[in-house]
Amino acid sequence: MPGDSITITFQPVGTRVVVSAGSTVLEAGREAGLILAANCGGNGLCGRCRVSVLGENIPAATEVECSVLSREEIDAGQRLACRARLPGDTAVHVPRTTLGNQQRLQLDGEKKNVRLDACVRRHPIEALAPSLDDSLSDFSRVAQILNSEPGRQTRWHASIRTIRRLSRLARESAWRFTVFSRGDEVIGFTGAGKHPLGVAVDLGCTKIAAYLLDLENGDQLAACGIPNPQISYGEDLISRLVLARQGREKSLELARAVQRGITELIESLADQANVELSQIADICIVGNTAMSHLLLELPVDGLLAAPFIAATASAVDARVREIGIDLPNDICMHVLPAIGAFVGADHVAMILANGLHRSSHVALGIDIGTNTEIVLHKPDRELLLIASCPSGPTFEGGHIRHGMRAAPGAIERVLFTEDSLAVKTIDDLPPIGLCGSGVIDAIAQLRQTGAIDYRGHLQAGQPRVRQGELGNEYVLVEAKDSGHGKDIVITQQDISEVQLAKAAVAASIKTLLRLSNTREEEIGEMVLAGAFGTYLDVDSSVAIGLLPKLPNASCIQAGNSAGTGAKMALVSRTMRDEAGQIARRAVRIELKQQKDFNRELALATRFPGNEDEKE
Amino acid sequence: MPGDSITITFQPVGTRVVVSAGSTVLEAGREAGLILAANCGGNGLCGRCRVSVLGENIPAATEVECSVLSREEIDAGQRLACRARLPGDTAVHVPRTTLGNQQRLQLDGEKKNVRLDACVRRHPIEALAPSLDDSLSDFSRVAQILNSEPGRQTRWHASIRTIRRLSRLARESAWRFTVFSRGDEVIGFTGAGKHPLGVAVDLGCTKIAAYLLDLENGDQLAACGIPNPQISYGEDLISRLVLARQGREKSLELARAVQRGITELIESLADQANVELSQIADICIVGNTAMSHLLLELPVDGLLAAPFIAATASAVDARVREIGIDLPNDICMHVLPAIGAFVGADHVAMILANGLHRSSHVALGIDIGTNTEIVLHKPDRELLLIASCPSGPTFEGGHIRHGMRAAPGAIERVLFTEDSLAVKTIDDLPPIGLCGSGVIDAIAQLRQTGAIDYRGHLQAGQPRVRQGELGNEYVLVEAKDSGHGKDIVITQQDISEVQLAKAAVAASIKTLLRLSNTREEEIGEMVLAGAFGTYLDVDSSVAIGLLPKLPNASCIQAGNSAGTGAKMALVSRTMRDEAGQIARRAVRIELKQQKDFNRELALATRFPGNEDEKE
Repeated sequence: MPGDSITITFQPVGTRVVVSAGSTVLEAGREAGLILAANCGGNGLCGRCRVSVLGENIPAATEVECSVLSREEIDAGQRLACRARLPGDTAVHVPRTTLGNQQRLQLDGEKKNVRLDACVRRHPIEALAPSLDDSLSDFSRVAQILNSEPGRQTRWHASIRTIRRLSRLARESAWRFTVFSRGDEVIGFTGAGKHPLGVAVDLGCTKIAAYLLDLENGDQLAACGIPNPQISYGEDLISRLVLARQGREKSLELARAVQRGITELIESLADQANVELSQIADICIVGNTAMSHLLLELPVDGLLAAPFIAATASAVDARVREIGIDLPNDICMHVLPAIGAFVGADHVAMILANGLHRSSHVALGIDIGTNTEIVLHKPDRELLLIASCPSGPTFEGGHIRHGMRAAPGAIERVLFTEDSLAVKTIDDLPPIGLCGSGVIDAIAQLRQTGAIDYRGHLQAGQPRVRQGELGNEYVLVEAKDSGHGKDIVITQQDISEVQLAKAAVAASIKTLLRLSNTREEEIGEMVLAGAFGTYLDVDSSVAIGLLPKLPNASCIQAGNSAGTGAKMALVSRTMRDEAGQIARRAVRIELKQQKDFNRELALATRFPGNEDEKE
Repeated sequence: MPGDSITITFQPVGTRVVVSAGSTVLEAGREAGLILAANCGGNGLCGRCRVSVLGENIPAATEVECSVLSREEIDAGQRLACRARLPGDTAVHVPRTTLGNQQRLQLDGEKKNVRLDACVRRHPIEALAPSLDDSLSDFSRVAQILNSEPGRQTRWHASIRTIRRLSRLARESAWRFTVFSRGDEVIGFTGAGKHPLGVAVDLGCTKIAAYLLDLENGDQLAACGIPNPQISYGEDLISRLVLARQGREKSLELARAVQRGITELIESLADQANVELSQIADICIVGNTAMSHLLLELPVDGLLAAPFIAATASAVDARVREIGIDLPNDICMHVLPAIGAFVGADHVAMILANGLHRSSHVALGIDIGTNTEIVLHKPDRELLLIASCPSGPTFEGGHIRHGMRAAPGAIERVLFTEDSLAVKTIDDLPPIGLCGSGVIDAIAQLRQTGAIDYRGHLQAGQPRVRQGELGNEYVLVEAKDSGHGKDIVITQQDISEVQLAKAAVAASIKTLLRLSNTREEEIGEMVLAGAFGTYLDVDSSVAIGLLPKLPNASCIQAGNSAGTGAKMALVSRTMRDEAGQIARRAVRIELKQQKDFNRELALATRFPGNEDEKE
């Protein structure tokens, strides 16, 4: 009966949780702390959250589940976690592909050399205890010692929270400890001789990566990543923003989820590096504008409707305690500036990390995700143009029949050699689906072998092409070779999805070049940023027309540039200033307002190839 | 039975409260929001919290009550609120003298002219709503408008709390509102055309006075005072500090009491002046060092034992939300600097308000309370000496048999004319006791009529002198003329208490003059600050030797100078700087370490008079 308590055991992890009868598997999973993929926000639309309900208490399949799952799957107990309401005690098997935290995290971008110039300074305190002859207040005693250091004298101040901590600490340490300052403010204390440490955070929609750095020597002491805990509220940002707009309670729930995630990351970093949390003296974070708003509990209404206005796009120094992050010192989280509602601080960090804004070449930066950002830098005209286009989840395996995230068992490379077809999977496990780079490789190869024409039509009669439920499909892996005993296919629909997604990127690049009067030959540098940009095969991408053919450009697959930019800004005030300059200099191009964009978009759905093919 | 709920009705106010059986009257009173006098902190020592328990459920008198109250009083149902545990439903009559909030509040010090130079500035916002062609973020839009004002351009910033409020406000007001800034920070918003207002707070141990000022024209819009709600935790500061030291919970309880009091004062001020709380843009507060620590939740351990060290004595700008005060704008409370653990910001404010530190005369400032602070300014030597001495509660009516606070019915003036004796009471009610100024007047008159000798001995045989329970006593008001039908007397013990208290003040002044080589004739100005200093009769005070005879000094009874100083610092950054200079320039003299002080103290217990009298 609804309302009764039931016990759900999640397999294979073995986590047990008590929930009300009638809860969905997704709700129970959240309760258990499991992050289940729910791309569509738990609306039964994406079919990504499939689980197997074991035992006898299998709920009847809902209409939505019947439309998404096959008869056999339903008979075998498969259900959608977001739809299946559990009537009684049961066990639920969560497959790897549904369990969010199995995905591969990309932690390290390219290393950059940055002159260290951190915001926070360290001051050793070694003082005599107060006496009747020397009865300065505790804070004045600290200020006096700081002012006795060579260099500028100032009127030191501190928040009341910091002053509250001082007296006990001073007595417990017999006046031997370390003070951290930021400008004229004393922001915290740690043990004698300890360095100030900082945390750089790359706050993505799907994952959060964090790095612990020593602010005095720049050493990276630890790195750690987790899936963004907001995933269980909706994989795409719009779902989360719509949820946050529902009211203070919901927006706080979303904020707390990510704030707790960041807190746990920081604790893990400190554990890994075996340091005290009191050494944490600064935090620098990059994320897109929507994620920043959700983290900072800023109103999101402006982000959801034209004219799409952020509450703030400037750099923000938010006291961590104001954003639900509890650390000993009264430090700020520096949020890098964004360019606007659509182009976030992550993109500013990418430009910063790759030095695109200071390149002596004409430089093109591309960050492909569900939203793709493109930047064009022209040194002669001091131009920094930015365009963004929604490219959908296709390149992350979404909207693809057998697509999946870049998780173990995902096909990431496809190669045809003569008659044979080879696939390479993540962790070399038997294949269970395709991630984005695998999809691109596969389609490039299909195109090369002639299995699809320039319009993307699968050619009946070609090897491995067969008639499927919804038109032609190409059998990439036969059931006997797959990890789940079922064929892995590429459908005509999959190819159409890729055509739409790659057209959006290609047309955006083309339009940006046209608007700035830039020929492809002029471009000297192309930087591909982000996880997908790092793993994709550039030749395949050029072959399917996702990326332009740039005869004179060096191509850099830069890795997690956003994280690198966050680290640079963490240790350097100069880099924070440069980030501000990038945000101010950048001009955003609204592609949809360009009259030729739609024609460009239509043309770009085609695949490059022999002109002969065309009618 | 203890644990059961009982209902207590407080008379004459009629407040009803439900508490556990076995609660003390003091606890029930706190629950009911009544402030009962509990000078000793509820330890049954002072006997000031007497109440009458009505009806049948009168608890048996405790041993402590039997020692403090007379047989008749006990039989009539009188008990001590701090001792009497109520067994069942009952009514309790709280006499005027026990009910804290009947005391007279002194709200206005001398008016001073100060050049207006507030920390907070006002900026009108009148902007077009964002559009697709003008998609600046909300905060950048505000910053752009501020930077379009004539004058300096800056990188505006704001706390995340402030940014959170902006978007809704901007839309609701159609981009017509007022921004408040402080330095480079946007700190809040109010309606279009509204001025920034500020609140000056004089945080005393026994009362809190607050004033609402317009920061642009200096007009005082409202004034309000309440008893310090901490009184029910102990009238003297030591009791409260000892309580606060017991742990975080107790110290927070004390802090919340005074924080709530200040919040309510601010709300009352806004009500009185009919303004929005969003107009409050700054707060400036003065209080002694212990009160500041209790308000700011600072550790008090250092204040309770030698070498007596404050956590901080510097000026502090505390965000109001960090000290439990909830206001719309993210404003700071400026706490004026103190001179040390013993000489607080209230004394700095007194010096500031009276311009003692800038006087062209040798100037003496005296602020008499349970602790008396004395300041000596010598312009030729840039000397600013401060001494403080514990003078006890005598001048507030404490430790005096029929002493009471300056509340209605208290004798505040005594005058002998020929044979008759006239008393003047507050509000001209029938007398019920003596407040401090009445005690001084009475003793000066007794001394003048020869009823006491220079050693303070009541002379048997003089009119109205009779043998009491504890030695001689002087009948000041007979039962038939009093407000409660009992004699009002001055006992030998009362006179001794006054001798001790006035000796402490007189010896301190004398020692300060001696140490600074200052003759009484050199002093050109004497300022008497605080409530008692305002109401006392200077001639009587000189007659009993409380104050020195200064032949060349003008004497100013300055009123609530601390409040005036707070107002000056509220509206003027220059005055805040001057307060800092006073705190840094002041040199505190530790009187007890002066070798002649004890001899001075012993001599000063005597009353001035004919040398013939002395042995």
